[in-house]
Amino acid sequence: MSTAILSGKPLAALIQQEVKEQVRSLDLDGVRPVVAVVLATADESTRWYVRSIERAAERAGVGCRIIDLGHDATEQVLAGALRDLGAEPSVHGIILQTPLPAGVRTHHLVGLIAPEKDIDGANPLSLGRLAVGQPAFAPATARSVVEILDHYQVPVAGKDVVVVGRSAVVGKPLSLLLLARDAAVTVCHSRSGPLERYTKDADVVVVAAGRAGLLTGSHVSSRTVVVDVGTNVLADGSLVGDVDEASVTGTAAGLTPVPGGVGSVTTALLLLHTVEAARRQSSSTPLEAEAAEAQVLEAAG
Amino acid sequence: MSTAILSGKPLAALIQQEVKEQVRSLDLDGVRPVVAVVLATADESTRWYVRSIERAAERAGVGCRIIDLGHDATEQVLAGALRDLGAEPSVHGIILQTPLPAGVRTHHLVGLIAPEKDIDGANPLSLGRLAVGQPAFAPATARSVVEILDHYQVPVAGKDVVVVGRSAVVGKPLSLLLLARDAAVTVCHSRSGPLERYTKDADVVVVAAGRAGLLTGSHVSSRTVVVDVGTNVLADGSLVGDVDEASVTGTAAGLTPVPGGVGSVTTALLLLHTVEAARRQSSSTPLEAEAAEAQVLEAAG
Repeated sequence: MSTAILSGKPLAALIQQEVKEQVRSLDLDGVRPVVAVVLATADESTRWYVRSIERAAERAGVGCRIIDLGHDATEQVLAGALRDLGAEPSVHGIILQTPLPAGVRTHHLVGLIAPEKDIDGANPLSLGRLAVGQPAFAPATARSVVEILDHYQVPVAGKDVVVVGRSAVVGKPLSLLLLARDAAVTVCHSRSGPLERYTKDADVVVVAAGRAGLLTGSHVSSRTVVVDVGTNVLADGSLVGDVDEASVTGTAAGLTPVPGGVGSVTTALLLLHTVEAARRQSSSTPLEAEAAEAQVLEAAG
Repeated sequence: MSTAILSGKPLAALIQQEVKEQVRSLDLDGVRPVVAVVLATADESTRWYVRSIERAAERAGVGCRIIDLGHDATEQVLAGALRDLGAEPSVHGIILQTPLPAGVRTHHLVGLIAPEKDIDGANPLSLGRLAVGQPAFAPATARSVVEILDHYQVPVAGKDVVVVGRSAVVGKPLSLLLLARDAAVTVCHSRSGPLERYTKDADVVVVAAGRAGLLTGSHVSSRTVVVDVGTNVLADGSLVGDVDEASVTGTAAGLTPVPGGVGSVTTALLLLHTVEAARRQSSSTPLEAEAAEAQVLEAAG
């Protein structure tokens, strides 16, 4: 059995190209898309990740503002920054980068991200809107999974897709995206039955559990396409996914590698969401004016 | 095989009793819980349903205001009513009753229901909060399913639960409630594979598809508990669920009847949510004052 390796890199390049084109088109309308990243940690790998977003934005012509509030930022300061960015017309996308300082209520802060600028789908309202089919940005990682499957023409409509992991950032939003594409979706997790019970007969298995080596070749069949969302840093500093690559390669029909799979698409999607947000915000001005006028009439009448 | 008939009525009676006790306890604090139902339809069965909520509220000592805006109410009038009710301290719960007049954007209006008063979980923000584990009211029907399973001590933790139907009012919120209780959850629907592929080995099957007779005895095994969320009105005016009762009775381990199953618990839960909302809103007053004060200090300093 030869397992197709589904690299994220060609797709990431296509999305970056699309972003560049949209940047040029927005430029004709005098709009420069800008993403703001709110950062409050001394963690080196996180700061490295944020710099990688900054570099990617620069390459694509998207403005990037790093709002570094320091590792001891208070909730009040973070809340103030999010409110300011929400009100700032020159900023179109907002990322609240985790981890946040101890004692800060993350769930309270994500609710302060302006929904129309919530390009990484962190505000629960974005998740709720996705669930009911209203326009909203999905978390970039969840969308990456769907885009990779699309890119490699792996069908999900009418198919059985299993998501391993039920997190609010990947498992749950991903299951909503897959349901919207007519997949039958099973979500299993650390407290459900033996993994192979769910994964063995699946057409697609997405592993987002945060446990290195969780899914092995014995869990899947030769028709299963496996998408690995895991990012685990080993003691030697190397990055591995949740899939035991050695045993799954040779067993499954396809596998996304780590690194170079889902993660490589995520940053490109954050920038794509930023230009989409910029487009919506710049084109919605006439509608907003209309709505404001209607309110004035309502108040007057 | 003898199939246990899991009536909702004893549970509904217990919840009504709980509501009455909470009403008495709130009365000591000078609070009378009130639910408002916004109605804009001439449909007789809907108006009958709203009157049944009113009667149940009356019996439990919960105030009920029917805001009847007529079958030709505009979106602006409906929006105004929802905003007024959100701001009105004497109202603790709000139900926006469907169907709404043609041309009215339901998805826009549900977003105007104050989240703390959204006792039927209609605002997408409520769904998003449920997904991330923040306090929110689930749609009463979805919660009914979980409460019936609890009442009859049908375990879901570590079990395989299948939800047939992916609606925003039942299937999706229910899958979130079940995941939070450690079930492995599969959502299948009209575009997924043959029903028995999903339901045959399940511990619990919840049918919420809106199709009379969809699930038959051949789809389930003797260890499956079946919960029927369907409410289909036949040509002769009788009410049936999505389950073919004749064939499932004698095959499955348990079955909730229609009528007298999930539906009979739903109204009781709407009243329970109303008293819970009244309790939260009356006890949160000091906190809100504190937050307002903090904002004043923030603005000053």
